Amino acid sequence: MELLTFVLDDTKAEPLYHQLYKYIKIEIQEGRIDYGEKLPSKRKLADHLGVSQNTVTTAYEQLIDEGYVSAIERRGYFVEKIDNLIILDAPEKRINRDKDRGLSSIEYDFTYEGVDAKSFPFYTWGRITREVIDERDNDLLKETESQGDYHLRHSIAQYLRQSRGVDCHAEDIILSAGTEYLFYILFQLFRGRKLFGIENPGYEKLPLLFSRNNVNYVSIDVDENGMPLKGVRDSKADIICITPAHQFPTGSIMPISRRVQLLNWMNEKNDRYIIEDDYDSEFKYSGRPIPAFKGLKNSDRVIYMGNFSKSLSPGIRISYMVMPKELMARYIEELPFMICPVSTIAQRVLTRFIDEGYFGRHLNRVRTAYRKKRELLVMTLSQYGGKFKIIGADAGLHITVKVNNHMTEEELVESAKEQSVRVYGLSRYCSKNRDLNRILLGYANMSDSEIVKGIQRLSKAWL
Amino acid sequence: MELLTFVLDDTKAEPLYHQLYKYIKIEIQEGRIDYGEKLPSKRKLADHLGVSQNTVTTAYEQLIDEGYVSAIERRGYFVEKIDNLIILDAPEKRINRDKDRGLSSIEYDFTYEGVDAKSFPFYTWGRITREVIDERDNDLLKETESQGDYHLRHSIAQYLRQSRGVDCHAEDIILSAGTEYLFYILFQLFRGRKLFGIENPGYEKLPLLFSRNNVNYVSIDVDENGMPLKGVRDSKADIICITPAHQFPTGSIMPISRRVQLLNWMNEKNDRYIIEDDYDSEFKYSGRPIPAFKGLKNSDRVIYMGNFSKSLSPGIRISYMVMPKELMARYIEELPFMICPVSTIAQRVLTRFIDEGYFGRHLNRVRTAYRKKRELLVMTLSQYGGKFKIIGADAGLHITVKVNNHMTEEELVESAKEQSVRVYGLSRYCSKNRDLNRILLGYANMSDSEIVKGIQRLSKAWL
Repeated sequence: MELLTFVLDDTKAEPLYHQLYKYIKIEIQEGRIDYGEKLPSKRKLADHLGVSQNTVTTAYEQLIDEGYVSAIERRGYFVEKIDNLIILDAPEKRINRDKDRGLSSIEYDFTYEGVDAKSFPFYTWGRITREVIDERDNDLLKETESQGDYHLRHSIAQYLRQSRGVDCHAEDIILSAGTEYLFYILFQLFRGRKLFGIENPGYEKLPLLFSRNNVNYVSIDVDENGMPLKGVRDSKADIICITPAHQFPTGSIMPISRRVQLLNWMNEKNDRYIIEDDYDSEFKYSGRPIPAFKGLKNSDRVIYMGNFSKSLSPGIRISYMVMPKELMARYIEELPFMICPVSTIAQRVLTRFIDEGYFGRHLNRVRTAYRKKRELLVMTLSQYGGKFKIIGADAGLHITVKVNNHMTEEELVESAKEQSVRVYGLSRYCSKNRDLNRILLGYANMSDSEIVKGIQRLSKAWL
Repeated sequence: MELLTFVLDDTKAEPLYHQLYKYIKIEIQEGRIDYGEKLPSKRKLADHLGVSQNTVTTAYEQLIDEGYVSAIERRGYFVEKIDNLIILDAPEKRINRDKDRGLSSIEYDFTYEGVDAKSFPFYTWGRITREVIDERDNDLLKETESQGDYHLRHSIAQYLRQSRGVDCHAEDIILSAGTEYLFYILFQLFRGRKLFGIENPGYEKLPLLFSRNNVNYVSIDVDENGMPLKGVRDSKADIICITPAHQFPTGSIMPISRRVQLLNWMNEKNDRYIIEDDYDSEFKYSGRPIPAFKGLKNSDRVIYMGNFSKSLSPGIRISYMVMPKELMARYIEELPFMICPVSTIAQRVLTRFIDEGYFGRHLNRVRTAYRKKRELLVMTLSQYGGKFKIIGADAGLHITVKVNNHMTEEELVESAKEQSVRVYGLSRYCSKNRDLNRILLGYANMSDSEIVKGIQRLSKAWL
């Protein structure tokens, strides 16, 4: 091809190079310039069109970038084969049907989900992310090892040793993207041959997760100290799933005596396990922190689960478990197909966030924020002189209350809703019927004024 | 507390505010300043220490940031409760045991994993990521919907409609973090009641993934057109898993006649399904692209799986499937506990990357890069005049070769290794014995010179 004849319009806002680039691109796309054809030299085309050579250079480079043209040294610019060029136009206007769903009438939601958005270190997170990507390390493009990036596992192990008393190392840890994904790993290792004992009430997802995976489970009623030994023995469970740091949802903290009983139960047989879900242990408001179960003696067969959903945000989707040695050996041997679901960039960012001290500082900051919210919530409730009995407020990001009136739990939830307040009855967490008549109030992502106004509405509804 | 007596050292490189901040922090940590104690006013302390008030302000603000101190308006600065303060020191020196594993003697690895690192748009990816985080949208902290972010699903649906002829919408798509995570969803929906038919040879992870999840499967031998109808009928499978765009690993492209046969088989019974894994369909080098199975008529019950591992990078960990309507209804009904494993930030970044046209451009660029590598590989092999028979080079990121000598497949692999070259015998992808005597050569993450030198070594080993 000798010359392209095309009128550039310099009265347009669109830069000249872009007009030229677009023109040539469409000519190629529509087959008017063929594969292999040589484009005019930059100098010639610039002369011909009456533009600077720079304009042509920029247009050609854009075409090279997008694969329409290639430059061959000392020979010139040639049109590429475009058989399978993918042309994505601007997306059509979208209608987000999902967004219209429910919740509109709720003004105050005492959910236990979510975190204090004001505390999230967006600036630092953004800066570290950019730094990680800017290094252009090719390893960022690869999956990490199946257990997760070694350095991140190392940093998590160190955090667990220091703050939770869990004696573990990078080699003992598997990273994943949430509690259910950790359970998939365990299901594949135990392959339906174990009976799981779960807390009643407890984390509401477990019964369905277990039954959908054909895993047998039995519900064990918790008392004011968590899962009782007698219940465990009666259930014949092989593996129990517990939340000793802050029982979900009742809020109780398991005392050391009960812990020792359960560990002894586990150690009676060498195919018994305890799964400790330490889901919000970062937040304890009175006394010294109680070390994790996994920090006690003879806890080798405890499987420790943790995550960053409460301490950073649920949107980050990073969880982990500390595996007993023999179970980890089996993981490596039997599940070689597993790929860690967490993106390599996200793992690298979190590693630096921990190693450079930001995670520790962030925890201190949010702990203070949550302590204040909790104090405000407890204080506001106590203004109604004995009408609310507060249970489980020593840790975590939710409390439970018994309301001193004659309403059933269902009536409490319903009458709150009429005041545009959402609260959660403990029965929704019961896998086996229990008459607890208690309400869960989460406060992590509520502002101070929402806490106060929400409780005022509840007092209207209930008192 | 009236005053803090402390000598600041202005000959140190450490800024004065930082010395002051550190001093007070340690005093608090070690209990020498008590909870609730009031710190000296900024003016007083600045006078006392002979520093500017700014220095004190900066130190106090750092302490507030980290939760050691709180400011109460008009009253002053007070020490916070630090019961559970987490103090993370600089991490101990780490020894990465995992890094020392194997591979050291291999100089040229013709793996089919990985992508061309030079083509990855690090700059754009970093810029968009920073933009997304800088918006400080609180929704970034939350999980997305269980199916994944609506907007990303919308963008993927549009891409699939335009480039793969798959008529689907955001509502039909589930996002996850890799093929095995998509299968966990299907396992939970089918709950062990189906017999899966898989390709032999095929994706090597499937047999183990299926057996570890107690899912029945049967291997079906593929021929030069992919999975044959007779094999499907004989197997009694309810669901077949196929890679029609570029059979893995043999490289064949399933012709339309075979596709129609398999669709008819599926439609004979309404509980039969076809799982189409379109793992590297972005790359086809001759003729027009063949639309996906899911793009054909009567393909309602085809489950379409795709991912960004080949088109962007395996490190990104984002995959998706297009679900039949009734299966999606069951997903929503039966698996309400599922949380999308992909981080919200990553989903947001990918959405913009697609919507702003970068993904289309990137695909064009890498397609050109891979076409050239493939041409170089084929050309280099053909220099050995008929010694290599190349099969399956029309698409994807790997080819297979039959070597015209008297070596067994095992001998081919072993003798290559002696020349420090890693190649992959097709038998490693066979779930049931087959004597294919063929070698897989991937080229996506090899440079031009590695391709040429690697093949030279192979010719030494084999010819």
